[in-house]
Amino acid sequence: MRRAGIRDVADLAGVSISSVSNALNRPDAVSEQLRTRVRAAADQLGYVPLRAAQQLRAGRSGLIGMTVISIGNPFFAEMLEGAEEATSAAGYQVMLGNSDDSAQRESSYLELFELAHVEGVIVSPFGDVAPALKRLRAQQIPVTLVDGIDEQGLTPSVSLDNVQGGRMAVRHLVEIGRRRLAFVGAREEVRQTRDRLRGAASFAEEAGVPLDVTIGLRTTPRLGSEIGARIAGMPAHERPDAVFAANDMLACGIVHGLLTAGLRVPDDVAVVGYDDIPFASIAAVPLTSVRQPARAMGRRAGEMLVSLLRGEGEQPPATEVFAAELVVRASTVG
Amino acid sequence: MRRAGIRDVADLAGVSISSVSNALNRPDAVSEQLRTRVRAAADQLGYVPLRAAQQLRAGRSGLIGMTVISIGNPFFAEMLEGAEEATSAAGYQVMLGNSDDSAQRESSYLELFELAHVEGVIVSPFGDVAPALKRLRAQQIPVTLVDGIDEQGLTPSVSLDNVQGGRMAVRHLVEIGRRRLAFVGAREEVRQTRDRLRGAASFAEEAGVPLDVTIGLRTTPRLGSEIGARIAGMPAHERPDAVFAANDMLACGIVHGLLTAGLRVPDDVAVVGYDDIPFASIAAVPLTSVRQPARAMGRRAGEMLVSLLRGEGEQPPATEVFAAELVVRASTVG
Repeated sequence: MRRAGIRDVADLAGVSISSVSNALNRPDAVSEQLRTRVRAAADQLGYVPLRAAQQLRAGRSGLIGMTVISIGNPFFAEMLEGAEEATSAAGYQVMLGNSDDSAQRESSYLELFELAHVEGVIVSPFGDVAPALKRLRAQQIPVTLVDGIDEQGLTPSVSLDNVQGGRMAVRHLVEIGRRRLAFVGAREEVRQTRDRLRGAASFAEEAGVPLDVTIGLRTTPRLGSEIGARIAGMPAHERPDAVFAANDMLACGIVHGLLTAGLRVPDDVAVVGYDDIPFASIAAVPLTSVRQPARAMGRRAGEMLVSLLRGEGEQPPATEVFAAELVVRASTVG
Repeated sequence: MRRAGIRDVADLAGVSISSVSNALNRPDAVSEQLRTRVRAAADQLGYVPLRAAQQLRAGRSGLIGMTVISIGNPFFAEMLEGAEEATSAAGYQVMLGNSDDSAQRESSYLELFELAHVEGVIVSPFGDVAPALKRLRAQQIPVTLVDGIDEQGLTPSVSLDNVQGGRMAVRHLVEIGRRRLAFVGAREEVRQTRDRLRGAASFAEEAGVPLDVTIGLRTTPRLGSEIGARIAGMPAHERPDAVFAANDMLACGIVHGLLTAGLRVPDDVAVVGYDDIPFASIAAVPLTSVRQPARAMGRRAGEMLVSLLRGEGEQPPATEVFAAELVVRASTVG
């Protein structure tokens, strides 16, 4: 079935094309009777004078594609909301591809966005997106990165210093007197995980404190809870006295698992998370967390993309690095 | 800049088009030298033999558009994941439009999806989507609804009986002896809010128990926390002894606000939430919640859409209604 056009509406309503156009676009300028007649015909045919379709004919879809690692993590939902704020202010709408911890899904979205007529792309990278960035550049589709950087320096990016964030978390645990630390993290393919671990390990080494490492996990509260139960089940002399979890989804679960098994947080085990998602402050024990300004980062990546779309991008491409901030709550300082 | 085609790659590599095709699609069938040469040319031009582009030429984008009310609520993230599971099993990828409590944004996404060449659409409706459904029908783009129904019965849907869910929550509070109830809910434009309130109000009336109603809210933990503090600030004889919050984001926040103000949950105020998001069970006080099987609902809506795309849709359109289930935890029964 061919899409109904304005001519079809005019034919069915028995009026001229310009009458249809006036009735739909400047309803106050026509009679109530004409308006009703044209609307009835348009409804019958399923015709809508798409603002979007008009934009597309003018070479503008108004669409921006965005991928994030896992939308189930409220951190990424906030980042998306920030990107939406910045781009909708400039007349764009974001369509999201949820990479869901899969490099294959991620690269597939980055192909599909082209077909979907997006004008620009925001990538919060999971895997190696260099080939996709190269292809998008070749198609002259502007891209910005958020929570990631382009090693080649060709793509504007907004990131956070996760090495510093990792150091910050472990320094805090050492400062409050903890001496047997554990790091619990997501997939090691994820650069953020590796950087947080690197920072954590470097500070632990400098302080001469052992750091037990568990990575490669899906980051869900449920899995965190299982890990908390496992830690609680260890003999007291082997058990870590502090856990640094590489995101709050895991950390909230770990606290729950520890409490459920009868341990005290932070007395027996202190817990630090990462991201400072909205639930961190209202968790079973309010969570100490390395705060990332997710919304501000998403907003900045959106603003940078809008600049590129307006032909106002900077050379060399801007790279903004946000600083991590430790928010101390009851999960470490009771 | 025109998109580089296979002919451009062949010209640059100085080989035939079929050599390019072989080198890229059946690399084992050609010499290492040809492979290297073709890949270098393809890289230089930013040419990639898009599986997706091939699909599109064959009239298939492989794309499905989906809107949800607010992706910041983990309930909708789980629903999306369910829809992704069902549709990716059939070779599709979902692109998400986050309506974010805006009927205008929602209807705009439902227009934009058409331009983005989606083959099908899953809508978790916020506003009145009837005009959009009509238009999509006219374009022969299959649609399923999730967490919503089509009053006209023309669109397959997966929903949950929210009136029953609302009754269930209030019945539980009355059964544990509560006599001054409060309902706290999201925007009243949202059918789900109205249905939950209707169920809650009908049971409260039958039981002869007063129900104080506050609706029209953005559903964030922070706002919930403010409401909890406000309730805690009321004189004891006016204060509700139980709160039914129309989603867990609010309910978790309310519990936190009550605790922070020094009240006991459930002793002073019992709290019931709705959705049973992953954080509900690990909240400050594990939350009693009316469980919605978000993932299963999303999966079912995805399966129904795949059936429609295969021309296997049912007549009349299937409408599946899931039952709500009360999960009792410490926020009501200490």
